[in-house]
Amino acid sequence: MSDTLATLPTPCLVLDRPRLLRNIARMAERCEQLGVPLRPHLKTPKCVEVARLLLARQARGVTVSTLAEAEFFAAAAQAEDDGLRDQLYAVPLAADKIPRIAALIRRGVRLTAVAHDADAIAAYAERAAAEAIVLPLLIDVDVDHHRSGIDAADPGFLAMARAIHAAPSLRLAGIMVYAGASYDAPDHGAIAALAERIRAGGVAARDLLRREGLPCDVVSYGSSPGTQFARSLEGITESRAGVYPFQDLFQAGIGACTVDDIALTVLTQVTGRQPAHNRVFIDAGGLALSKDRSTAGHGFDAGYGLIADLDGRLIPDLFVQSASQEIASIGTRSGAPLDMARLAVGMRLRILPNHSCFTAAAHAHYHVVDGTQQVAALWRRVNGW
Amino acid sequence: MSDTLATLPTPCLVLDRPRLLRNIARMAERCEQLGVPLRPHLKTPKCVEVARLLLARQARGVTVSTLAEAEFFAAAAQAEDDGLRDQLYAVPLAADKIPRIAALIRRGVRLTAVAHDADAIAAYAERAAAEAIVLPLLIDVDVDHHRSGIDAADPGFLAMARAIHAAPSLRLAGIMVYAGASYDAPDHGAIAALAERIRAGGVAARDLLRREGLPCDVVSYGSSPGTQFARSLEGITESRAGVYPFQDLFQAGIGACTVDDIALTVLTQVTGRQPAHNRVFIDAGGLALSKDRSTAGHGFDAGYGLIADLDGRLIPDLFVQSASQEIASIGTRSGAPLDMARLAVGMRLRILPNHSCFTAAAHAHYHVVDGTQQVAALWRRVNGW
Repeated sequence: MSDTLATLPTPCLVLDRPRLLRNIARMAERCEQLGVPLRPHLKTPKCVEVARLLLARQARGVTVSTLAEAEFFAAAAQAEDDGLRDQLYAVPLAADKIPRIAALIRRGVRLTAVAHDADAIAAYAERAAAEAIVLPLLIDVDVDHHRSGIDAADPGFLAMARAIHAAPSLRLAGIMVYAGASYDAPDHGAIAALAERIRAGGVAARDLLRREGLPCDVVSYGSSPGTQFARSLEGITESRAGVYPFQDLFQAGIGACTVDDIALTVLTQVTGRQPAHNRVFIDAGGLALSKDRSTAGHGFDAGYGLIADLDGRLIPDLFVQSASQEIASIGTRSGAPLDMARLAVGMRLRILPNHSCFTAAAHAHYHVVDGTQQVAALWRRVNGW
Repeated sequence: MSDTLATLPTPCLVLDRPRLLRNIARMAERCEQLGVPLRPHLKTPKCVEVARLLLARQARGVTVSTLAEAEFFAAAAQAEDDGLRDQLYAVPLAADKIPRIAALIRRGVRLTAVAHDADAIAAYAERAAAEAIVLPLLIDVDVDHHRSGIDAADPGFLAMARAIHAAPSLRLAGIMVYAGASYDAPDHGAIAALAERIRAGGVAARDLLRREGLPCDVVSYGSSPGTQFARSLEGITESRAGVYPFQDLFQAGIGACTVDDIALTVLTQVTGRQPAHNRVFIDAGGLALSKDRSTAGHGFDAGYGLIADLDGRLIPDLFVQSASQEIASIGTRSGAPLDMARLAVGMRLRILPNHSCFTAAAHAHYHVVDGTQQVAALWRRVNGW
């Protein structure tokens, strides 16, 4: 491929492979130290080539967030024991999605789904029986009240586990927990304390099941910062860390990475300037960058993204201050005048995203670079449902 | 097609055709009263079938926001004088996109592009000459300092017009203005006052060009509320209103429509409940709904959307209170307890979006209904760049 960052059509995604590999290696090492295998969450990359790099480093299976991902990765699997065929579909299951899951299972995919409401179990059992499959399920256990799941102290928890265990078309595989509130924790110590609370909550839920004679082989644990800063993950059987291969400004804001670790950027160019208003316009707007403002609630509000040059070097003080659908404007955080000579019309820039999962989702491909401006590969994403 | 809203895979987009037609008719009537033809902005629907409905009602050409849209609509054009071939590409042009534009022009598309920086003109002229085309350009005139464009009082404005007029490969077609600040106006009167300021600013810029002996056939004017509430659009040659066919909660919030006018919804279903936390989870998250929070700054903050039943009837007090990637939670605005019996697992709902342009962008298709739950048609969108 002869494309370079100077010639690619804008806007588009650029993925820095050395940073990607470094991020993958760092989390793999961390999980080796913790003694917990990774089941990386592919909701962020949604890309076979990235999944292959993850599976090459310790990961034994993958996590997906949509059935479109499950089908995409299953279609790319090669050997019978390919990790792409070992999938956790980690969002609460809707019973009417079971026929699509059954089609995957019949093609040899080892797929586990997730339950979080006792009232759903009868429909799961009925649908799975109609498809003549045995569907493994994790129960989503809510420890920090951040997202979905059932409190293990709720009488519904054991009732649900028993109902799954009793249904011939279902199999109780274990539980999952999610350290979602790690995204609101003020520092590494607070994240570590939360991680311990989530770990302990997961292990307690497992012990509760086992005391009742119910199986619980899997204690699945999530979030990248919750894995990175955990002091121990004893009792946890897998980590579903997801955003770490790419990282983003939100992760940098909570100290989970540095800005230099961010592997994903949006390539754009200057289309006009307004010196009187101290702003410069680019051709990546709210669709190409996403409207995610997750950095807004933290100490470092990055607007809609920070700005790097074509070599990936951050340009100090610049940020994306506003974004309409296909146009965004760059200003300075300090209010200092922009260097209009440097930001000439046609000047190409790379925008570091607030939240890489959302920014990537508007794009069909990654343009992969190896630390230079030369495009080394084009990797496809799977979007939609 | 035998799909119904009770059987479609979730999440997906549902488009209510009677509401769509009503919204289209209302704006067409308004523009007839104003004596201004519509050049509707297809950045919202990005769909040939919707464009056909718009062109059937008075519109003589279309506006696009990406070259992917331009190419998609050009490919769908039939007759030589098809309105789909009469395109305004209404974002500031990057010179290196001219080869793609030239390919469209050679295929018979009458495409006009937009300039907003005098320093870009030399590159436009050079690229257009290299492609052996004559590229019509509007100058983006900034009246309300809301977005891109050049102030007509800036000496660069006339310099830019002269440079375009002098270049054999370019043609000065006119100017465009945008009433973007109408989205911050507190009431209809304020929107009307702003609309008049934008109109007058556009006409003044036109007169400035004409006094200098420069051509200005087109005075293109934008925003749906700015068109709807304008008392006069005298001197304006076309309106680029865009969001009005679908409408959304933001438009309802500023009084540009009622909630009953919103034609676009996201179909979803309940996947679990947490009575202790008074919330219910659905399978449409921040990707399916978008992370756009544009209603947050207004009197009526709709969270990530309001909730209707399958027949499109609003369920009072409910809203989407939080959204992660594939999971969102519904709560009550008042804090009153949710009716958990009504919100059973598997219950299907329709989410009214904050900002339909962004919500639609994550989806590949519209499922069209005619006021019933029966899916009457599947219409494709063009996404990406």
